[in-house]
Amino acid sequence: MTMRNFLMSAFTAVDVIRTKRDGEVLSDAQIDWVVDAYTRGQVADEQMSALAMAILLRGMTPAEIARWTAAMIASGERLDLSGVPRPTVDKHSTGGVGDKITLPLTPLVAACGAAVPQLSGRGLGHTGGTLDKLESIPGWRADLTNDEFSAQLRDVGAVICAAGAGLAPADRKLYALRDVTGTVEAIPLIASSIMSKKIAEGTGALVLDVKVGSGAFMKSVADARSLARTMVDLGCAHGVRTVALVTDMSTPLGHAVGNAVEVAEAIEVLAGGGPRDVVELTLALAREMLAAAGLADADPAAALADGRAMDTWRAMVRAQGGDPEAPLPVAGESETVRAERDGYVAVDAYGVGLAAWRLGAGRARKEDPVSAAAGIVLHRRHGEPVRAGDPLYELRTDEAARIPAALAEAQAAVVVSDPRTVTSPLVIERVG
Amino acid sequence: MTMRNFLMSAFTAVDVIRTKRDGEVLSDAQIDWVVDAYTRGQVADEQMSALAMAILLRGMTPAEIARWTAAMIASGERLDLSGVPRPTVDKHSTGGVGDKITLPLTPLVAACGAAVPQLSGRGLGHTGGTLDKLESIPGWRADLTNDEFSAQLRDVGAVICAAGAGLAPADRKLYALRDVTGTVEAIPLIASSIMSKKIAEGTGALVLDVKVGSGAFMKSVADARSLARTMVDLGCAHGVRTVALVTDMSTPLGHAVGNAVEVAEAIEVLAGGGPRDVVELTLALAREMLAAAGLADADPAAALADGRAMDTWRAMVRAQGGDPEAPLPVAGESETVRAERDGYVAVDAYGVGLAAWRLGAGRARKEDPVSAAAGIVLHRRHGEPVRAGDPLYELRTDEAARIPAALAEAQAAVVVSDPRTVTSPLVIERVG
Repeated sequence: MTMRNFLMSAFTAVDVIRTKRDGEVLSDAQIDWVVDAYTRGQVADEQMSALAMAILLRGMTPAEIARWTAAMIASGERLDLSGVPRPTVDKHSTGGVGDKITLPLTPLVAACGAAVPQLSGRGLGHTGGTLDKLESIPGWRADLTNDEFSAQLRDVGAVICAAGAGLAPADRKLYALRDVTGTVEAIPLIASSIMSKKIAEGTGALVLDVKVGSGAFMKSVADARSLARTMVDLGCAHGVRTVALVTDMSTPLGHAVGNAVEVAEAIEVLAGGGPRDVVELTLALAREMLAAAGLADADPAAALADGRAMDTWRAMVRAQGGDPEAPLPVAGESETVRAERDGYVAVDAYGVGLAAWRLGAGRARKEDPVSAAAGIVLHRRHGEPVRAGDPLYELRTDEAARIPAALAEAQAAVVVSDPRTVTSPLVIERVG
Repeated sequence: MTMRNFLMSAFTAVDVIRTKRDGEVLSDAQIDWVVDAYTRGQVADEQMSALAMAILLRGMTPAEIARWTAAMIASGERLDLSGVPRPTVDKHSTGGVGDKITLPLTPLVAACGAAVPQLSGRGLGHTGGTLDKLESIPGWRADLTNDEFSAQLRDVGAVICAAGAGLAPADRKLYALRDVTGTVEAIPLIASSIMSKKIAEGTGALVLDVKVGSGAFMKSVADARSLARTMVDLGCAHGVRTVALVTDMSTPLGHAVGNAVEVAEAIEVLAGGGPRDVVELTLALAREMLAAAGLADADPAAALADGRAMDTWRAMVRAQGGDPEAPLPVAGESETVRAERDGYVAVDAYGVGLAAWRLGAGRARKEDPVSAAAGIVLHRRHGEPVRAGDPLYELRTDEAARIPAALAEAQAAVVVSDPRTVTSPLVIERVG
């Protein structure tokens, strides 16, 4: 014990790393110290990335995850939304391909009487980012002050914006680090990252959309369920009513994958149309959010049908400087790929995500710009029949040079074969 | 395959990290790329530390270790010692407490007819560094140019100096990184670090002293044997005749642990005296080195007894600006601890190393200075009988404020008890 205490005082970062590396449980004091010291720059990036890898490979107990989350919340401010006159409820998706659900969902739930304080992120790798998508709307801005955020939540009931720098700064730093160090896929770190931001933002209730499948970080239902359970427990421990749906991400959501193309599809849903799966998941999540907010009697399908959701969308976009009537950017280059034979289509989410990323819709490094117009539109979706010569999908980009590499991805991801491909149910299970 | 190739070209560092993280074997191309890109700063420290942790926890195949070592050698220059008229042979110790063996061994082997191109390091943590010890000799300098190095090797036959920046720069960078990220203890990384430097320095033969026990990085004989085998195979694959001795480091070597105090003890050995274990290990390693150099008939014991080794020591120190006759620094503060009871002494290497470090003999960060005079002198060694009131050990430091913390370490590390503590054989096994 003497030697260990000695090391704690002099070699602390290395000692914390070694503890986890050797499969031991981190103490509360170690977790509090390392999260705080990392936020202050006293623990270096290269030390935290080694610790993150050790956490990924060694795991964390529920108590460690809870403490880590609390330490991340404590690294910054915690918003107080008690001045908002409606019940607050937020939604978080663990990220997928074609996942534009936040866009119709936020105004829809607000139109039904709740207030939705949606702090979103940008895309990294093959998954798109909600803020990147919304920025394809001319004039729209992602950055609001805390006061603007609260005022819009009070007046419109719906906000989708970037998390302020004051919210869980430890997570902000760690998230960027994990992305470049192969340590994204650690359930303890994913759960604490998501939940620290959501708890700090002050929402009263939270619905999680935990994606599973090739286009998601979680590749197995067991992992997704474990992540969902971990996050639900973390939320409840911090007084946030939290429910999770585990949903399929083996194939893209809807027809559109990209930025402006996804906004266009979201607007179709708000206009009462849109792809069946996007509508289904939007309504399933809306019902969970409304129930969690104590508004179980609200009818989100009616709010889509009668235009109330669209009205809130327009108000929300305008409140953030956007012009909801302005035409969305159109790509300068496009290429349509047709089926070479009759059969049934199989569409792999990950490959389509990579193809869209190759076209310029996503970024490789967090400082990279994205193209608003780039993306893919699927003319046939997973499980649908096709005839030789029918259009399968269309690639859109601002730079023709991007097409060959994207095409290689897309051709591997969208295939036509004889047997009808099995489709999963969209909502796989509920974790409450 | 398409997706993987795609990632290789765009997300390469993360892809390499993920490959090892997921327990797969790194390809030759991945290893060559990541070592080179890290040396050039294209792979960031936080990426390499995550990879190092994944290597530590997932391991590497012999082929991966060989390729990694070759890539580290290729990151810099490789010295050509073919102009040296004697056979060249070097020795490397994996580091221990009180391990001053390089000091008498290098001139001893040179006095017997070989040339010893000893590129050494500095101490980190609880193990001392050969260069730190030699720098307690007034005027002695560790940094030589390649030309000075070759000339001294030719003229004196013995050099102990710092490795130039041109030699395995990848290792130089990675070694410093591992030290602060809890990734020192990975056998593939230890083996490739040591062997890349030794192969690049151009020695014809090499004898490894692989330490095992509380004061060593390897805590078990099985781990030490595995490291020894890995390094012997690496050396032989690169045309360096390599042999390893696995030796005990559960208790310090000799009486002295520190810098100047260890130099003084080394000089005792060169004068034909000194502690029995230091002499035994010096001679065992000298015989292995001379045999590996094709000089199996040389008699190192005679060279110690007749003063030839001491003459070479003096020439070696003078050649590097040192005054072998100058008095060594003496600590301003000291405290002698006496036995509180009769019994047998047990001395733990790790705790004594920490105590010496606490006194100022070692450094916590690589930019820290060390105190030449700080250290510990053991009056009773492991397994020896003692009577109440007899002096057990003496702490020496330049700063009295360092004594209490060092004392706490030392009291835990040096204990007197009834049963005679078992002592291990010094040379546990030979791996050839």
